[in-house]
Amino acid sequence: MAFSVLLGKEFETDQAHEGFIEVAESSPFGIDLGITYPATDVDTVMEAAIAAKGTWGKVSVDDRAEVCLEILDRLAANNFEMAHTVMHTTGQSFLMAFQAGGPHALDRALEAVAYAFTEQNRLPDPLMWEKPQGSRDPLVIEKRWIIRPRGVAVLIGVSTFPTWNGYPGIFASLAAGNPVIVKPHPGTILPLALFVRLARGVLTEHGLDANIVQLLVDTPGAPVAKDLVMRPEVGIVDYTGGSAFGSWLEENVTHAEVYTEKAGVNSVILDSADDLGPVFRNLSVSMTMYSGQMCTTPQNLFIPESGITVGGVNVPYDEVAEGFARAVGGLLGDDARAGAILGAIKGTDTLDRIAQATTLGNVLLESREVPSADFPDATIRTPAIIDVDASSDAFGSEMFGPVIFVVRTESTEDSIALARTAAQMSGAITWLAYTTDDDVQEAVIEAAVDAGVSVAFNLIGGLYVNQSAAYSDFHVTGGNAAGNASLTDPAFVARRFVTIGVRIEP
Amino acid sequence: MAFSVLLGKEFETDQAHEGFIEVAESSPFGIDLGITYPATDVDTVMEAAIAAKGTWGKVSVDDRAEVCLEILDRLAANNFEMAHTVMHTTGQSFLMAFQAGGPHALDRALEAVAYAFTEQNRLPDPLMWEKPQGSRDPLVIEKRWIIRPRGVAVLIGVSTFPTWNGYPGIFASLAAGNPVIVKPHPGTILPLALFVRLARGVLTEHGLDANIVQLLVDTPGAPVAKDLVMRPEVGIVDYTGGSAFGSWLEENVTHAEVYTEKAGVNSVILDSADDLGPVFRNLSVSMTMYSGQMCTTPQNLFIPESGITVGGVNVPYDEVAEGFARAVGGLLGDDARAGAILGAIKGTDTLDRIAQATTLGNVLLESREVPSADFPDATIRTPAIIDVDASSDAFGSEMFGPVIFVVRTESTEDSIALARTAAQMSGAITWLAYTTDDDVQEAVIEAAVDAGVSVAFNLIGGLYVNQSAAYSDFHVTGGNAAGNASLTDPAFVARRFVTIGVRIEP
Repeated sequence: MAFSVLLGKEFETDQAHEGFIEVAESSPFGIDLGITYPATDVDTVMEAAIAAKGTWGKVSVDDRAEVCLEILDRLAANNFEMAHTVMHTTGQSFLMAFQAGGPHALDRALEAVAYAFTEQNRLPDPLMWEKPQGSRDPLVIEKRWIIRPRGVAVLIGVSTFPTWNGYPGIFASLAAGNPVIVKPHPGTILPLALFVRLARGVLTEHGLDANIVQLLVDTPGAPVAKDLVMRPEVGIVDYTGGSAFGSWLEENVTHAEVYTEKAGVNSVILDSADDLGPVFRNLSVSMTMYSGQMCTTPQNLFIPESGITVGGVNVPYDEVAEGFARAVGGLLGDDARAGAILGAIKGTDTLDRIAQATTLGNVLLESREVPSADFPDATIRTPAIIDVDASSDAFGSEMFGPVIFVVRTESTEDSIALARTAAQMSGAITWLAYTTDDDVQEAVIEAAVDAGVSVAFNLIGGLYVNQSAAYSDFHVTGGNAAGNASLTDPAFVARRFVTIGVRIEP
Repeated sequence: MAFSVLLGKEFETDQAHEGFIEVAESSPFGIDLGITYPATDVDTVMEAAIAAKGTWGKVSVDDRAEVCLEILDRLAANNFEMAHTVMHTTGQSFLMAFQAGGPHALDRALEAVAYAFTEQNRLPDPLMWEKPQGSRDPLVIEKRWIIRPRGVAVLIGVSTFPTWNGYPGIFASLAAGNPVIVKPHPGTILPLALFVRLARGVLTEHGLDANIVQLLVDTPGAPVAKDLVMRPEVGIVDYTGGSAFGSWLEENVTHAEVYTEKAGVNSVILDSADDLGPVFRNLSVSMTMYSGQMCTTPQNLFIPESGITVGGVNVPYDEVAEGFARAVGGLLGDDARAGAILGAIKGTDTLDRIAQATTLGNVLLESREVPSADFPDATIRTPAIIDVDASSDAFGSEMFGPVIFVVRTESTEDSIALARTAAQMSGAITWLAYTTDDDVQEAVIEAAVDAGVSVAFNLIGGLYVNQSAAYSDFHVTGGNAAGNASLTDPAFVARRFVTIGVRIEP
């Protein structure tokens, strides 16, 4: 298969480089990747990007969009190879890796191209401008407008969803005429390397400078991202990843447009329901899928200490909490099914967090190692579910990975307030609330709007809160610490180019 | 008249304050203003703004636009009063103060409201979203979207065009639901104070919180801008003024959207013409209007040392340079006409720069004091025209005010390169080129696009390069150091609000 022939080889992208470097890329499923990548440096890629900017910036908006679509088409034909590379670098199950790494990532990319195309076409066509001057002849002047790309764009990749999170910035920048330097996460390189190679091929076929898209790979011991983004030629930085580096970018890269998606604390507010069974079925999937390594995974489940109303009857707190833990335990009791839902754990620090979490409250469900028949060396864990009091400071910040807090609150009002505070302090991307009470629903919406968090209600079927859809959502609001921009909306693309007016007296 | 009754009085805006403060506001025309303003502080206005945000953010997009238009309508009825306040605080002649401070400022404001209205209405209406699931039932969910203002907006006013430069940010922020704190330049307060009072009146009449718009006045001895913008509740800062503080804002206010218009070095490239007379007539106005205190005033006139081609005949460098100086001298020889074109000088440091400039090269035209019959204490000066060599470092940075450099270059190619370097080093907003050669025109456009400078060609009639028009220009490209944003385009408004998605399982 296409993926396996890449293993243990030098990955050639046909860009200027001196040999190949060994990297810290590893597979959560425990297979040996052993791929080396072109060894290059910031100076080399920056010089090539600046040279490429001159020509790419002058290609018409239409032609740039067409080249972007051709790259997407070629990527679509490559979805199975990409799915395996995403699976084996991120730890996603094959199904999720296929969906999120392939078609859904392409949806996002297409959305970014469409927005960038639309924004650039909002300019008026050349025209003769007339200003009446009373009894005198009008002032008449020819006006036209030229779009110039912002500068060199940098994409700093994430370890968990390299293509889904990476494509929007890459394609928005490309469609607006900016050359892109792709700097993957040092632990998840292959998916974006594959994209770069494919994109360069399409560019070359179109007679364009392949250096419009370049790869710059680094290692944890010799990171290059800071040096790269601080170059004055950089006009755009797109980033998905941890909050520390995201905030560093926002605070230090003031010479460029910076778009970040960072961490957040997502919450579930449990108030009332018609039936708890479907609620638990939905939650037990959404809170455990890919072992909580999605930016949209709920971490906290807020339940009032007085219990909740189910079908008009009060169900006490402990019964709800234990029922939830039992549902999760049941779902993940079968090793094969657990493996398909959980995927594998990407980072070793995530394992440390599971151990740490169990010291923070009353353990409702222990994390367990799940053996895999297909991948004996895979790192697979069920989540730990910890029961904590509202006064605990355990749940206010992100515990990335398979850690779930069930939080005993004073009331639903208190649940909402706690979710809001967590979002305002640590950021949040999604809330999910269960309620049969319209007033509660309104109160949750009001708090969500205030906290800048997208919110879903009463999901009990096959749609999970973690899943967001291109074209009709605005993933990340940009309105709290979880990120400063949305993927994808007009604001995400409008500043990736500038407009120069030309006036000519006829 | 409405203006004169304001003089020497306490200016009440009907907002919370403790008495009135004396300020450093003064009139370049030498009349005594003596107006005091409400004394308040950052804590007080911030608290009131946060309270106002809650209600204003929930007013519908349509209703917010309507309130903004009502304010504009009321301002339009007040154009003569505003013209006098702009004239006597900025030093603009009455005609310019009326045009730029009144109708043209309102044009910009209306444009900002229109863009903000359009951007907020690009959201889809609430809808039922369906995702096919093959042979199973489709996933169906109700989706809707809610706009939330970014935060508290701050407008930091400029001393020269307080309404023209201030309204775009103010109205874009208001239309997107953000309360606005207006912090005028300490030397030019009255025009924006008048706006604030009028806006608060309209808000009150609509039953809205008047604190959606507030005034915060300070003095050079106790500036409040840094304290104000560093408050975490601030989501937007709009600024026009000197580069030092503008760059400080860009580098330090990383928790908010920052839109700046700073200084620049604008250039004229003289290559060839059919007739020099109309060229000089146009340039002698555009380079002297309002004593070069416009952000769009050309400062440098680049002429090749070999001279230029006029009607097919070579005219030597000295003849061109001296002809230009003579044209300026002639235009400004009559005191009354000079006063009407030049206006008065706003800052004392501008007078120092005139003196300094004469030491930098060969003086082609001395600056002279112009007496004013109407305002005996007015500070009016004709520009100094200085002839310098291309190797001089005099013309590479901004000499704000009535200083013109005529620069002797090796060739038109050299002229273009020098203009480009000045723009890239110091920023630039406008270029003006005179050429009858299509290749030169293309070369100038290419350099202008690269440098991010709007460019005009062969202006010989009643249109001056300084004048920009709402709706069909993009004032400041955001593509060089003269500013990071355009007044006004979609990018100027798209990030003033965030969008929160709501999903409800039916």
